[in-house]
Amino acid sequence: MSGIDTFAIVGGDKRQVAMAESILSDGYNVCAVGFENAGLKSGITTASLKDAVKMSDYIILPVPATTSDGYLNAPHSRTQIAVDDEFAKTMFDKKIFCARAEDLIAASPIFSNMQLYDYSKREEFAVNNAIPTAEGAIQIAMQEYSGTINGSRCLVTGFGRIGKVLSKMLKGIGAKVTASARKPKDIAWINLLGYSAVLTASLASASAGSVDFDIIFNTIPSLIFDADVLARLPKNAVIIDLASLPGGVDFDAARKLKIKAIQALALPGKVAPRAAGEIIKNTIYNMIEEGQL
Amino acid sequence: MSGIDTFAIVGGDKRQVAMAESILSDGYNVCAVGFENAGLKSGITTASLKDAVKMSDYIILPVPATTSDGYLNAPHSRTQIAVDDEFAKTMFDKKIFCARAEDLIAASPIFSNMQLYDYSKREEFAVNNAIPTAEGAIQIAMQEYSGTINGSRCLVTGFGRIGKVLSKMLKGIGAKVTASARKPKDIAWINLLGYSAVLTASLASASAGSVDFDIIFNTIPSLIFDADVLARLPKNAVIIDLASLPGGVDFDAARKLKIKAIQALALPGKVAPRAAGEIIKNTIYNMIEEGQL
Amino acid sequence: MSGIDTFAIVGGDKRQVAMAESILSDGYNVCAVGFENAGLKSGITTASLKDAVKMSDYIILPVPATTSDGYLNAPHSRTQIAVDDEFAKTMFDKKIFCARAEDLIAASPIFSNMQLYDYSKREEFAVNNAIPTAEGAIQIAMQEYSGTINGSRCLVTGFGRIGKVLSKMLKGIGAKVTASARKPKDIAWINLLGYSAVLTASLASASAGSVDFDIIFNTIPSLIFDADVLARLPKNAVIIDLASLPGGVDFDAARKLKIKAIQALALPGKVAPRAAGEIIKNTIYNMIEEGQL
Amino acid sequence: MSGIDTFAIVGGDKRQVAMAESILSDGYNVCAVGFENAGLKSGITTASLKDAVKMSDYIILPVPATTSDGYLNAPHSRTQIAVDDEFAKTMFDKKIFCARAEDLIAASPIFSNMQLYDYSKREEFAVNNAIPTAEGAIQIAMQEYSGTINGSRCLVTGFGRIGKVLSKMLKGIGAKVTASARKPKDIAWINLLGYSAVLTASLASASAGSVDFDIIFNTIPSLIFDADVLARLPKNAVIIDLASLPGGVDFDAARKLKIKAIQALALPGKVAPRAAGEIIKNTIYNMIEEGQL
Repeated sequence: MSGIDTFAIVGGDKRQVAMAESILSDGYNVCAVGFENAGLKSGITTASLKDAVKMSDYIILPVPATTSDGYLNAPHSRTQIAVDDEFAKTMFDKKIFCARAEDLIAASPIFSNMQLYDYSKREEFAVNNAIPTAEGAIQIAMQEYSGTINGSRCLVTGFGRIGKVLSKMLKGIGAKVTASARKPKDIAWINLLGYSAVLTASLASASAGSVDFDIIFNTIPSLIFDADVLARLPKNAVIIDLASLPGGVDFDAARKLKIKAIQALALPGKVAPRAAGEIIKNTIYNMIEEGQL
Repeated sequence: MSGIDTFAIVGGDKRQVAMAESILSDGYNVCAVGFENAGLKSGITTASLKDAVKMSDYIILPVPATTSDGYLNAPHSRTQIAVDDEFAKTMFDKKIFCARAEDLIAASPIFSNMQLYDYSKREEFAVNNAIPTAEGAIQIAMQEYSGTINGSRCLVTGFGRIGKVLSKMLKGIGAKVTASARKPKDIAWINLLGYSAVLTASLASASAGSVDFDIIFNTIPSLIFDADVLARLPKNAVIIDLASLPGGVDFDAARKLKIKAIQALALPGKVAPRAAGEIIKNTIYNMIEEGQL
Repeated sequence: MSGIDTFAIVGGDKRQVAMAESILSDGYNVCAVGFENAGLKSGITTASLKDAVKMSDYIILPVPATTSDGYLNAPHSRTQIAVDDEFAKTMFDKKIFCARAEDLIAASPIFSNMQLYDYSKREEFAVNNAIPTAEGAIQIAMQEYSGTINGSRCLVTGFGRIGKVLSKMLKGIGAKVTASARKPKDIAWINLLGYSAVLTASLASASAGSVDFDIIFNTIPSLIFDADVLARLPKNAVIIDLASLPGGVDFDAARKLKIKAIQALALPGKVAPRAAGEIIKNTIYNMIEEGQL
Repeated sequence: MSGIDTFAIVGGDKRQVAMAESILSDGYNVCAVGFENAGLKSGITTASLKDAVKMSDYIILPVPATTSDGYLNAPHSRTQIAVDDEFAKTMFDKKIFCARAEDLIAASPIFSNMQLYDYSKREEFAVNNAIPTAEGAIQIAMQEYSGTINGSRCLVTGFGRIGKVLSKMLKGIGAKVTASARKPKDIAWINLLGYSAVLTASLASASAGSVDFDIIFNTIPSLIFDADVLARLPKNAVIIDLASLPGGVDFDAARKLKIKAIQALALPGKVAPRAAGEIIKNTIYNMIEEGQL
């Protein structure tokens, strides 16, 4: 990527730390903002936001960019940095790589007139993040389920990216995998790939019988596992909800029924920060190389 | 199994708790000794050692039976129970299922004249325990390695039971698996099963080049990963030592080289107590049904 | 499917024979036209086209319906049946299940005003046919390649339905699989599923080096394997062209270069007639049950 | 392998032709006897048996060495060569690589005092030949079974080398695999590897129910599939008998019951001659390098 000299990495967690090191080792300068407590590797410059922006060709914001109370998502920062009009203005004429651009625009309308390049909307970002998400889900299952994954009866609801990768890995460990989907086409694929198939709708409606699964991985963001369905699960069952908020599980009902239900969000950054950092970096590199900026 | 009424479960951890519940649900009486703090399910009788032995057909001791300082391995017990001549005498005329009978005999020579049936020597016990051991190892790898298992370069040293199961599971998650063995026959099998093969001896002798693996699972109980070999690993490498003590890794050298090295012993009981309890129970049932008692 | 009594099966090969038996065993009447030499099972009625149409609720035409010279595709028929205006008129007011409806309309414009239900356009028909197609391709590879599939370097061009199923099966036998695709998203999936990935375009352009594959399965219907690319293959290589006509291989050039190149079309009917018959039947049943008629 | 100059390849089929070419391309001289009609590649010398023996360091005999009527197994030879005392004497002081040395000694007792090195007794020969044997069996199944392997219910009797490899490949294509074994230890492994397990003995004794398998691969050389068991198979079932003679199937009974039963022997040479030739060559090279000669 010729003509590029410096990336500013503004905020983020272990993923951004890993990404900073990785970009540095690719031969670029890296200027980091908001990592005072991260113990950054030597070679990575730190600077004020203003200076960092000035000396950089591109700015990279984290995923998510903002906390729920309006600050920059920067857990390793010594101080809190507000994401507001002033923040936006500081980097007004710069090219900015971000995730969930709509959040930034909600935080400051100025962003709507700026050069935002949303890496989180890229297909390869989503596909590649399915791997650490699936591994994180399996890790949680291993921690929480008192039997072995091998030989257990697993249900994966939804056969999108995460459903596909997760089903494959679970089968690779020796689980008995059932996957659910809505469309006949997906049901055909599920069967063809060697899993048992079930229509998602039938999970709720099977009012009579039990739902015989030891471990359930939900990827569908709508309430499937309500009190009725939960009551039909076996006693040692574990549910891991991977769907974005509000998720697909009635956690209160689960608590009452003493069924282990875990909400597992943002797994890539938690379980495989280095891999997750590489995925962000590679997506950004692809965007630069495709010349869409 | 006709004619059997009651099992005494004397000592043990979560595995024995799970086994007690499982035997109870099979329709037998269970009398537990040394589980005062375990919160046992109703239906399981508790009694003194003497009474428990008296009312039971079979006695089941845990794996391992003794702690390093000579007491019964009973972490859920309110008091410590010495494994000594008196302990042996209490159950003198009973049929005893135990693991590592040699440890008991070392604790009290009286045991050498008693009816000890060692379930830990059974082939199916070892084969089936390879599953929770392999899953436990993968769980540790997921926790400790900063990338994803998928796509990582894994080395499994030794192609015995654990090596075989672990290699298969790692490949099932998408790792690039290399397995090591000593015999040409095993090398042929490794290749045939789709892994890369390397002679165990060549790992140490490859003095020049690097040992390019991200995650190493050692199952060989002899020092392969000494300071020299460790120094040739990539910086983010993780070593998980599954070999029985003293293991196969120079942990001091690893610490100095800042390489993550984890000693992982007795995984089945830690990561999948219920599965591990079932394995013990099923092995004992097999022994009873084969009428070898 | 209530209210249905009789299916007329008009023309076809072993697949339709198998389908006739299967529909019969589901409890429906089956009236077959054009199977005089097929040795049909007792219970299947035979009749003239006119009578068969009259007594049936649905008519099923084969895939393809017509031969290149305008007759009904009916290899087991004693006489040739022209697919023309008269043929169309005979079944004018009936519901007709067919494949490639456009061929029928080309043969007689009357068909354009008739109730044609094209099962070959259904997604599950295509998905499920990928299985016998992939197996047929592997069978040909086993017959033609002088080594074993296990350990061989296989290239699958195109990562559509057949490419996906074929790659999975080849890997399941132990081949080293490389799959090609055009889109970055598909490249990400190829990697994620554990295959090597290559951009389809790069196969042609790699003018310098060799194309190191033992067996090549082409699923892309455009000329990729021209004389230049063929010349860069290893001497024992085998190419199996699964793409619909005109295919993707310069067969003349292959002959001159003494490279085995096989055009493999319509595999489901050839290698797994019973499975292929079931796929047609199940697709038709789905269409009836969805009430789209 | 220093000090070696020339190999004499005396008799054999396509495997030996492929082996001759392979040894030649490794840089050794090859002198072939009994391949007049094989169209050997230029560079391979042909000579009389006497001359070939004289000029060679090692002699390689085929597998099997002899035909049932006492001649050298040499289908590409213009004349028949008797394997008798004279044949033995011709190569008396030479090192001879052979298969099934006992056959040679039966043909001429002189061989019992000669330097016979039996490559067919080597473990890696057997392990590696399991691959072309399993692939050949699958190829036959694809040809003979009217459905697809994917989704079919396959039984593999015997969990030795061929049973292990075959089960793995069948599962890799998507079959539902059941494997049979006699020992509890093997049953544990079968379950652990993700197949269904059945005791071999129970196949015969299940006098009541049916034996619900679509394709059966027998690797056990004793009569398991007698008229009784055959009568309980589904009508479209296919049996492929891989066991050495007399095999494990009552072929007469199968014919009467109209069940497809195929005796499949010596598959490596038939389905993958080049791979089979490499396996012989590599085994011989190993023997030479281990210096056991």
